[in-house]
Amino acid sequence: MTATEAVLRPRTDSWLPDRLVASAAERKAGTQLRTDEFADWLAARGRANHFAVERIRLADLQGWSFAPGSGNLTHRSGRFFTVEGLHVVTGQGPVPEWHQPIIKQPEVGVLGILAKEFDGVLHFLMQAKMEPGNANLLQLSPTVQATRSNYTKVHRGSDVKYIQYFTSPGRGRVLADVLQSEHGSWFYRKANRNMLVLTDEDVPLDDDFCWLTLGQIGELLHRDNVVNMDARTVLACLPGPEQGPDAWALHPDARLLSWFTGERSRHEVRVERIPLDEVRGWTRDEWSISHDEGRFFRVMALAVQAGNREVTGWTQPLFEPVATGVAAFLTRRFDGVPHVLAHARVEGGFLDTVELGPTVQYTPANYGHLTGADRPPFLDRVLSAAPEDIRYEARHSEEGGRFLNAESRYLFVEAGDLGTDVPPGYAWVTPGQLSSLARHGHYVNVQARTLLSCFSTGAVPS
Amino acid sequence: MTATEAVLRPRTDSWLPDRLVASAAERKAGTQLRTDEFADWLAARGRANHFAVERIRLADLQGWSFAPGSGNLTHRSGRFFTVEGLHVVTGQGPVPEWHQPIIKQPEVGVLGILAKEFDGVLHFLMQAKMEPGNANLLQLSPTVQATRSNYTKVHRGSDVKYIQYFTSPGRGRVLADVLQSEHGSWFYRKANRNMLVLTDEDVPLDDDFCWLTLGQIGELLHRDNVVNMDARTVLACLPGPEQGPDAWALHPDARLLSWFTGERSRHEVRVERIPLDEVRGWTRDEWSISHDEGRFFRVMALAVQAGNREVTGWTQPLFEPVATGVAAFLTRRFDGVPHVLAHARVEGGFLDTVELGPTVQYTPANYGHLTGADRPPFLDRVLSAAPEDIRYEARHSEEGGRFLNAESRYLFVEAGDLGTDVPPGYAWVTPGQLSSLARHGHYVNVQARTLLSCFSTGAVPS
Repeated sequence: MTATEAVLRPRTDSWLPDRLVASAAERKAGTQLRTDEFADWLAARGRANHFAVERIRLADLQGWSFAPGSGNLTHRSGRFFTVEGLHVVTGQGPVPEWHQPIIKQPEVGVLGILAKEFDGVLHFLMQAKMEPGNANLLQLSPTVQATRSNYTKVHRGSDVKYIQYFTSPGRGRVLADVLQSEHGSWFYRKANRNMLVLTDEDVPLDDDFCWLTLGQIGELLHRDNVVNMDARTVLACLPGPEQGPDAWALHPDARLLSWFTGERSRHEVRVERIPLDEVRGWTRDEWSISHDEGRFFRVMALAVQAGNREVTGWTQPLFEPVATGVAAFLTRRFDGVPHVLAHARVEGGFLDTVELGPTVQYTPANYGHLTGADRPPFLDRVLSAAPEDIRYEARHSEEGGRFLNAESRYLFVEAGDLGTDVPPGYAWVTPGQLSSLARHGHYVNVQARTLLSCFSTGAVPS
Repeated sequence: MTATEAVLRPRTDSWLPDRLVASAAERKAGTQLRTDEFADWLAARGRANHFAVERIRLADLQGWSFAPGSGNLTHRSGRFFTVEGLHVVTGQGPVPEWHQPIIKQPEVGVLGILAKEFDGVLHFLMQAKMEPGNANLLQLSPTVQATRSNYTKVHRGSDVKYIQYFTSPGRGRVLADVLQSEHGSWFYRKANRNMLVLTDEDVPLDDDFCWLTLGQIGELLHRDNVVNMDARTVLACLPGPEQGPDAWALHPDARLLSWFTGERSRHEVRVERIPLDEVRGWTRDEWSISHDEGRFFRVMALAVQAGNREVTGWTQPLFEPVATGVAAFLTRRFDGVPHVLAHARVEGGFLDTVELGPTVQYTPANYGHLTGADRPPFLDRVLSAAPEDIRYEARHSEEGGRFLNAESRYLFVEAGDLGTDVPPGYAWVTPGQLSSLARHGHYVNVQARTLLSCFSTGAVPS
């Protein structure tokens, strides 16, 4: 890495946290539009672009086929992604071992948000983007959301707009840039590059793009299925405040890291990729590959027509969960400082065994058959929370490029009665501690990052 | 994780950096012995314990055999480690693809150093420990250096001394606790838990143990083959100073992390485990498995007799490099602040593609056949450095429990003539930035951590 001149700089951006707080405080209007105008803007983008998706038979996939020998679902280009099999042995809990289909996508994509000050307030360039699996199809996404195939032209489509800010070092000031995992239950070791870059250049504004303050995005996070997963995970990577009350926590950082290291060390998870044909307990028919007891998800296929994507039409497989998930942090204050109860989760697709997830992260329908001590801790408490204890609730879609109708209820639930004594695998952490961990990869899982974005945008006061 | 009471604490240990600096300044004497008495102490420990190693035929390994079908070298217990095959495709450089034997050891071990204040100065409890592959056999190791098999009794040996400080949370104050990688060219995704724990309990002192200040250990790091690899990597995990001049760097932390993320993203490394029998270009004879051109290393076997280990005698395979390695940081000051030139290295056994290594890390004999642009950058500069430019040089042994006679020359070489313009894959970083990264796993490789321990112990002034 080359520096332009031999002048030292402060290692940390001391000016940034205050600017972020100021942007999060601007909730009603930004430089481009008022927050109450946003729904019309998004609807207009929907009308300006033709989108349609249609469920198709697996045999009607174009360019995709089940490989002889393995049965893996692959694209003839050898790129994009494949659907393969996974055999996971945790040796713990009510389900100590299982087989499942999994998406393998070794390419690292770029999820990038461009930031710029207007009238002294930080704004973030967001895109109205169609993804075939998303509720409402059109949601608010990062400035750039591109696989390497996208921007190196495997799609043979048009250029990815604004990509140059994220591929040419020196075009702006990097606020965050980290490889983050995605859904470990559905992806095998997938990571995307989460970037925020601050520019002071004049930025030409394309029709499908919109400058918003953090506070405006925070308001939109209170609406169902508006801010897409990629936008949420990138926003979670913004640095959190570390001064004043934020310099304090129930557990010092060194002890928190030690607890996490212990959690990662004590789980001996064996993960083995297997041919899709050898996945036991799942059955393929004309339309899908599904679990024999109807749980978890189906592998299915869509045909997509789109007017403003890099290519105008395609078919692809997606995973379709059978039911809505729930992802919730229990939260309370200690000595006035907010804490959330993090859970060190094993997911079969994680690169390194364990990441921190929300207190509760389950698809309740998958666990209807479990009772008593086998029920996931805190699940019933979240499902039966009194309305006055729910500090935040919204439904959000997971990655709409790979998952169809994958919605989760995201919640913060007040739990002032819980003490410092928590079960093994759980720890009280501050939002600032989660932010510090999210500067690095493989600490905070994608569901916890959605909830963390509620803090960084002020959707939930921290 | 449970807190003892609901009292907030500062997230960072602001008192710790000054105590570490004070301990590093105590170079001549500690509470137990003077530094000039250390060699006698170590020699006495050698006389008090009987050690002998003998090279044996592969067929004379007890409990180890080549598995039918794969040819993998395995122990009948299914534990310890296995020697398997690896197929690596980087697609870059003079050697874009290769096969090799590799050690697979999925267990996470504990490398732990206990710290305690005597007369207001931090001391560290070090152990005189025999390892069969080490030069001189006996070297200075961490308080605890134990695989899970060790302390869960697969060896059926005696207890691991002092292990309770590292397995029972709450027995002390954690200064550092992080899963760090080891040699990515010889191990497949191995990680050990590097821990430092501060206690104020009375600690009974065993014969083979010695309390030393950081400065005393720093003095010993100037001697060849005294401080073992495990001690060096743990000491590298101590937090570095971050105030005053140490708060400044050529690249702010956010830009450094972004550069690192870019390096990790741009390498598409394909790594595939293969049966040892299918490793091409290597041949097994009665005594070893070796490379057909005599490069890299041999897989060989030793019989060990030891008086003070958990078990008194055993046989085991080891890797024996064919020549001495070199690991060197080029170093210079910018605006008075020391920087070292880090290299983002691909090693086939890394969990996540790339880690930061020294500027130069090679076994020169393996590259004698390469010329011109194919020679590793900066290698010839280090090999031909003028004596007045060498700020530090010592020979150290790599992990003596797995590697026989694996020695490297470790150096810091002054390079005041180099500017800020460096080749792709290289970046100037401060020792404090390396320390910050080493709080987390998979950033700083084991060779760079050896050099980093020279800063944390004051062996090299930072």
